[in-house]
Amino acid sequence: MRVKVSRKANFNAAHRLYRPDWSHEKNDAVFGKCNNPNFHGHNYDLIVSVEGPINQETGFVMDLKVLKDLIKAHVEDTLDHKNLNTDVPEFKNLNPTAENIAVVIWNKLRPHIDKTHTLEVVLYETPRNFVTYSG
Amino acid sequence: MRVKVSRKANFNAAHRLYRPDWSHEKNDAVFGKCNNPNFHGHNYDLIVSVEGPINQETGFVMDLKVLKDLIKAHVEDTLDHKNLNTDVPEFKNLNPTAENIAVVIWNKLRPHIDKTHTLEVVLYETPRNFVTYSG
Amino acid sequence: MRVKVSRKANFNAAHRLYRPDWSHEKNDAVFGKCNNPNFHGHNYDLIVSVEGPINQETGFVMDLKVLKDLIKAHVEDTLDHKNLNTDVPEFKNLNPTAENIAVVIWNKLRPHIDKTHTLEVVLYETPRNFVTYSG
Amino acid sequence: MRVKVSRKANFNAAHRLYRPDWSHEKNDAVFGKCNNPNFHGHNYDLIVSVEGPINQETGFVMDLKVLKDLIKAHVEDTLDHKNLNTDVPEFKNLNPTAENIAVVIWNKLRPHIDKTHTLEVVLYETPRNFVTYSG
Amino acid sequence: MRVKVSRKANFNAAHRLYRPDWSHEKNDAVFGKCNNPNFHGHNYDLIVSVEGPINQETGFVMDLKVLKDLIKAHVEDTLDHKNLNTDVPEFKNLNPTAENIAVVIWNKLRPHIDKTHTLEVVLYETPRNFVTYSG
Amino acid sequence: MRVKVSRKANFNAAHRLYRPDWSHEKNDAVFGKCNNPNFHGHNYDLIVSVEGPINQETGFVMDLKVLKDLIKAHVEDTLDHKNLNTDVPEFKNLNPTAENIAVVIWNKLRPHIDKTHTLEVVLYETPRNFVTYSG
Repeated sequence: MRVKVSRKANFNAAHRLYRPDWSHEKNDAVFGKCNNPNFHGHNYDLIVSVEGPINQETGFVMDLKVLKDLIKAHVEDTLDHKNLNTDVPEFKNLNPTAENIAVVIWNKLRPHIDKTHTLEVVLYETPRNFVTYSG
Repeated sequence: MRVKVSRKANFNAAHRLYRPDWSHEKNDAVFGKCNNPNFHGHNYDLIVSVEGPINQETGFVMDLKVLKDLIKAHVEDTLDHKNLNTDVPEFKNLNPTAENIAVVIWNKLRPHIDKTHTLEVVLYETPRNFVTYSG
Repeated sequence: MRVKVSRKANFNAAHRLYRPDWSHEKNDAVFGKCNNPNFHGHNYDLIVSVEGPINQETGFVMDLKVLKDLIKAHVEDTLDHKNLNTDVPEFKNLNPTAENIAVVIWNKLRPHIDKTHTLEVVLYETPRNFVTYSG
Repeated sequence: MRVKVSRKANFNAAHRLYRPDWSHEKNDAVFGKCNNPNFHGHNYDLIVSVEGPINQETGFVMDLKVLKDLIKAHVEDTLDHKNLNTDVPEFKNLNPTAENIAVVIWNKLRPHIDKTHTLEVVLYETPRNFVTYSG
Repeated sequence: MRVKVSRKANFNAAHRLYRPDWSHEKNDAVFGKCNNPNFHGHNYDLIVSVEGPINQETGFVMDLKVLKDLIKAHVEDTLDHKNLNTDVPEFKNLNPTAENIAVVIWNKLRPHIDKTHTLEVVLYETPRNFVTYSG
Repeated sequence: MRVKVSRKANFNAAHRLYRPDWSHEKNDAVFGKCNNPNFHGHNYDLIVSVEGPINQETGFVMDLKVLKDLIKAHVEDTLDHKNLNTDVPEFKNLNPTAENIAVVIWNKLRPHIDKTHTLEVVLYETPRNFVTYSG
């Protein structure tokens, strides 16, 4: 009896999409207004899901309070109210697209999730644009 | 041409998470404020999905009015405005965690769904905590 | 320049609608399945709004972090994961309808809001049923 | 590192469910009030998802602005503010159920998506009824 | 202690915006694609609010089950799965704009609401376009 | 027959709350993590409402396509994908709190709305924090 348990969280951050090795013209052509050098920002919504068997003693796959605390410690405390490009080491040389942010979040959480469980991250950049990464 | 059709429903119920064979201290340590002996409650949101081929005559995988009626008869009528611990036989000896409620709902619906179709249940305990069970 | 600032919060609680001085039949006739003697429950959503002039120094009508903390101390800590009928003194002799809960919340918050500000409480019992009280 | 990127869109349309080769009685029995000969209508919500590897140069699986433009050109411009039965050639001889609309949308978009990418369409006929098609 | 109680409902309908006494060109200029002669449609969301004093005996301003039944009898049964222009007598000579639909709904409900109570109707034509009428 | 018509829009922006004439310590004490010197950001949701009589010829208070275009020209084009502090002249000497942003938006739109109509702006900084300004 494998069940997927999911926890929704969110963080607010500034970012800019660009490659320093490209010209401003090429950055504009590829990244459009997301290439504003003064940054723009988003309320990111995050859904973290863990799948595994139900523990017959507790009835939990994983205590969602524990998952909530892991998300706070490893995601919110490092990304919330931050400038992703300048404040977050993982994006020093990595473009903070939704895809890359989702992979970074997955990598931050994976070591803290039971090895027999699967992990999935859904990241909403806006209510209309979102990405899913499962490792 | 297999398609998944989904129907959203909801029910409101009281519950308490605890094990009668554990001490109150252990119940508090594991289940926290969900172990209030006087119960608390939730508006549960439910998404039931059935996957199968499109019937070429009707254009339906399954008439969603039929699925709506099955959810009403087998889920809402037995769980809505109930105390899960005291009013619902399935939880006499089963902790009503979101995981266990999802499995109970899946088991209630499975006999009424075409054998060649797959069945999935997503249960939201709150907008931030939800679980998925597919049998 | 008066502006209304609003903060959304939520709490999960069990309750039962009935009058102890009425027969079970009359309670059933008036309160229907909300009169389950074993209780049912809801995820209550709450919007608290405060209206006043913008403080020209801070740009705030009222710091929403302060409002968030007031809601936590006076509403969430007293109502979340509680049985309204048995755990909350205000409902000892008061039927916990959405209307009465909204008035109780307003009365709990009013003393902590600047006297020159107005206060409004919107309480969602379900996404389809909600009430508004402004004192 | 495969990631699924999703874009939400919407269109408003009228439709009627029925088969011209059936009697009105049979159409009513199967399609109920959806068989109103004068049509009814919906705000359809659409989620289009494309899965593939992250392009290491851009950090995108696929530029969501490009996906947005594809949805506009191939879905919105042909279905929005239309009567599906009378204005859309694909439904001349095909019942515009949610299942069939999802398949039609998938077929419209598939030729424009990179062959190495997978494509999924989720179509909400109402917030409570929706279907998923992945080819 | 006056409280406003609100009930959310919804109906799905087809409509067309135009004036028969105008040329097709003028209708197109004013109503754009809403003037499709074959109709288009919407999932209309409706919030009906009634304000009055709390009945000290029940704790209700008005039983929301009664309001739900009034909305079903006077709004849903006459507008749901209908073509507003051709199936609903009130729009025989009245353009079914959101504004006019809201006024029609208000007029249908007003006779059934206690005279000492106020009545407000909010009608969402889409999640982005909505209107409010209070008599 | 006065009706309020409302249009929802949104923009994504970076900002920072602080006063240059205050010490960093005082800014931190008052604005907390919103005082990140590298900025953070939000998806702002905006509801603009105009109230007036229904035009008996069109059935509109105001064509919502016109209101949509006004919001695009005067709000989205000047605030979307911008850094409010550095890119928007109105915030050169004004702290971009939600309250002040709402007032700036109201002032931008007011000259373009019929003088006999009232104007209201609701601005969501996050789904849990929002402000309302009516002039």
